[in-house]
Amino acid sequence: MRSTVNHVLSVAQFERPFLFELFRRADQFAMLGCREAVGTAKGAIMATLFYEPSTRTRLSFETAMTRLGGAVISAEYAAATSSAAKGESIEDTARVVAGYADLLVIRHPEAGSVARAASVVDVPVINAGDGANEHPTQALIDLYTIWRELGRIDGLTIALVGDLRYGRAARSLARLLTQTVDTTVYLVAPPVTRMDARLIADLRTAGLQVEEADDLHAIAPRLDVLYQTRIQRERFTDPEAYTEACGHYVVDRELMRRLPSKAIVLHPLPRVGEIDPAVDDDPRAAYFRQARNGVALRMALIEWVLQRHLVEIVSSNGHLHR
Amino acid sequence: MRSTVNHVLSVAQFERPFLFELFRRADQFAMLGCREAVGTAKGAIMATLFYEPSTRTRLSFETAMTRLGGAVISAEYAAATSSAAKGESIEDTARVVAGYADLLVIRHPEAGSVARAASVVDVPVINAGDGANEHPTQALIDLYTIWRELGRIDGLTIALVGDLRYGRAARSLARLLTQTVDTTVYLVAPPVTRMDARLIADLRTAGLQVEEADDLHAIAPRLDVLYQTRIQRERFTDPEAYTEACGHYVVDRELMRRLPSKAIVLHPLPRVGEIDPAVDDDPRAAYFRQARNGVALRMALIEWVLQRHLVEIVSSNGHLHR
Amino acid sequence: MRSTVNHVLSVAQFERPFLFELFRRADQFAMLGCREAVGTAKGAIMATLFYEPSTRTRLSFETAMTRLGGAVISAEYAAATSSAAKGESIEDTARVVAGYADLLVIRHPEAGSVARAASVVDVPVINAGDGANEHPTQALIDLYTIWRELGRIDGLTIALVGDLRYGRAARSLARLLTQTVDTTVYLVAPPVTRMDARLIADLRTAGLQVEEADDLHAIAPRLDVLYQTRIQRERFTDPEAYTEACGHYVVDRELMRRLPSKAIVLHPLPRVGEIDPAVDDDPRAAYFRQARNGVALRMALIEWVLQRHLVEIVSSNGHLHR
Repeated sequence: MRSTVNHVLSVAQFERPFLFELFRRADQFAMLGCREAVGTAKGAIMATLFYEPSTRTRLSFETAMTRLGGAVISAEYAAATSSAAKGESIEDTARVVAGYADLLVIRHPEAGSVARAASVVDVPVINAGDGANEHPTQALIDLYTIWRELGRIDGLTIALVGDLRYGRAARSLARLLTQTVDTTVYLVAPPVTRMDARLIADLRTAGLQVEEADDLHAIAPRLDVLYQTRIQRERFTDPEAYTEACGHYVVDRELMRRLPSKAIVLHPLPRVGEIDPAVDDDPRAAYFRQARNGVALRMALIEWVLQRHLVEIVSSNGHLHR
Repeated sequence: MRSTVNHVLSVAQFERPFLFELFRRADQFAMLGCREAVGTAKGAIMATLFYEPSTRTRLSFETAMTRLGGAVISAEYAAATSSAAKGESIEDTARVVAGYADLLVIRHPEAGSVARAASVVDVPVINAGDGANEHPTQALIDLYTIWRELGRIDGLTIALVGDLRYGRAARSLARLLTQTVDTTVYLVAPPVTRMDARLIADLRTAGLQVEEADDLHAIAPRLDVLYQTRIQRERFTDPEAYTEACGHYVVDRELMRRLPSKAIVLHPLPRVGEIDPAVDDDPRAAYFRQARNGVALRMALIEWVLQRHLVEIVSSNGHLHR
Repeated sequence: MRSTVNHVLSVAQFERPFLFELFRRADQFAMLGCREAVGTAKGAIMATLFYEPSTRTRLSFETAMTRLGGAVISAEYAAATSSAAKGESIEDTARVVAGYADLLVIRHPEAGSVARAASVVDVPVINAGDGANEHPTQALIDLYTIWRELGRIDGLTIALVGDLRYGRAARSLARLLTQTVDTTVYLVAPPVTRMDARLIADLRTAGLQVEEADDLHAIAPRLDVLYQTRIQRERFTDPEAYTEACGHYVVDRELMRRLPSKAIVLHPLPRVGEIDPAVDDDPRAAYFRQARNGVALRMALIEWVLQRHLVEIVSSNGHLHR
């Protein structure tokens, strides 16, 4: 039974037809007026278990569930404040909380941990980030934003900039882009945060045209999408190396002048200094719209996960509980 | 568009007619039976962002929103656990969360920070305390409590006691009292926490009769309202000076004997030692009723803010989303 | 009025007829399909105040309230983040929050603190664990699980294993077992965590047959219920003594072979090493079902507490607010 549960663990599980279905449903949610609610999660409870702090991602999921009519129970900083501090395994915690909730959303600092949790429970689990491994819902939001802003996901030239080694957002997006057609990806990173050769090879095998580039200004005129990311301070032992890496690629007014008029700038946020706030009012600065799209996309995803889960229950029990 | 959004940032924005309107609406909410709900915030989501711990204020806001039929998403200790820890500006956080919620309630340790957040978003922001600057909803609750307990807000003699230098509650109340008529305010504080001359001058210019006093026992018989506040330990480098300041003005049974029979004692809470618990059963000890009034007053305020916000949306879009 | 409020503070307040009533109601909730809601707490607000971390217990209570149709306001780690950090007494906090909520659920590290809070408020308080003293809802869940799994609560042989000195779960269960008939309790603990003589004497006076035992393997074949608990590291100054105590009594496959085929293994969770995960798939391993039962039992208890509270209000006010 467990193996058929509808977890969201990796971007590898999504294919084109599903993506378009999801984006179209998200669009319906995005067009709802404020305070307009949907009832498709009514009676359902979502548990958010965040072993790493992330107010932004947690609140986005909770907003999505609330607007679907569902309820939320929530534990942030679970590592410090919960049973985990008493030495409990994530598998045990997941099993217990799966007895409370219809859906688990888990963030954890360790790669693979969310999949381990999912393997022992009979309710769907959504990976909200596991270490440097995956952040599948962020990648879905990124691609959905490209689709909304540019009207297509194929035939695009996209620069991934910043932390391509440890940053799960850019890495998950790169993997998801293998579902697109005729895509060129420029990898633009300081030496210490370059993407590893193995992932690059995988992307090429999957059909992406991948180029490494050093000069962001030089390639800017060719871009449809500039995907900027934050260099994470905790990856550096030498503070000067960190400062140097951060200053390498900054999106500022000068860079914007080189970007085509229909290009967009994305960022999974939070940003520190890698996008100059002076750029915020440029209509091509799409990162706050991208954050807002997160609610609609997650509504579509949660709805899909819960409905699939209900179908599972019907087929195993013979009748549907509602 | 942004400038017309209906934020609650300072007591300076409230005038008498609005105050009475608000108090009358709060009274309707205060008279509801337990478990009696109102539906005027149905479908709306309030985000509470607390960069400083305050279980009391946060829970009061969340209760008010819940009883109005709305939903809540919540981040406490946001400075440590959220994007702020990664170096994000409060403006960025507010912009992102404004994409999730219909109303932001923000507490922040830095004066002016909440107004900065409000300046970049298109949903209403309520200031739940910004450093030593303002705590406007507390002042509204205080004045509402005076109105409920004494039947009027004019012609009163009020002592503000304790921390009048850093305590935003007493300072916000003093400013709000400029909307009342024929009011005498005694300022009673140890030397280190005396109100600054500039605020005193502003209050006098606005028509308040302000007197500084040293002997609380001497003025007690003249008071209608004794507003006691906590001396904040973190303001003192010398522990002995702190202890001395704390012991200066304590509301105890002896002081209560000097207070008129119809006077009331208020305190924004929490208290430490500045009101003797032996006084709690005195009917003039109104501070727990004051805390309870917070829910009704905040219900009225949230309702007003959301309704005004809807009107904004109608006038700019031509139709009302509900 | 206050003394008649329907608090849940100690297992000592429960008698057999109430237990069976509660268990039957919990059974009705346990049989509901997922996403099937109950409306008996509609409009009510529960406040959870956790001065000690416990994600598990807090989420279980919040799930129960949500499934009853009620709302939740929540403060975890209240000691560090709330008014308590400013020096406020638990009585003051409880009085203020009782002005917001219809029901308080409190966990606190100090024995007797929850009862002190309950003594000053006029809404029901549920003790979710006060120091080494009591954890009454856990004991109700444990006995309810025995009743569900074995079909009866009388005539049983039960081993309480592990921390019988400081562990409130085992101690509360032992006290609650005095309501059962013809029960034999084996106490199996390393020397440092043996149950104190006074509690043993009380249990015997109340009619339990109590035996201390050293050899868990020897008594295993006689057991209907093996109740394992975690040895708490913080009780030990000597790390080696801790390790030694932990390794003393472990439930593993070898022990399971000695346990009768209809016996069950319970644990209040979290576990660290005292139950080998290899045992989890054994049908007699009932601890995850026990955790799941917590929601149904707490639904029944909250419903009972709220209904009793409503009756109180009717009888004192002459009419019922709904």
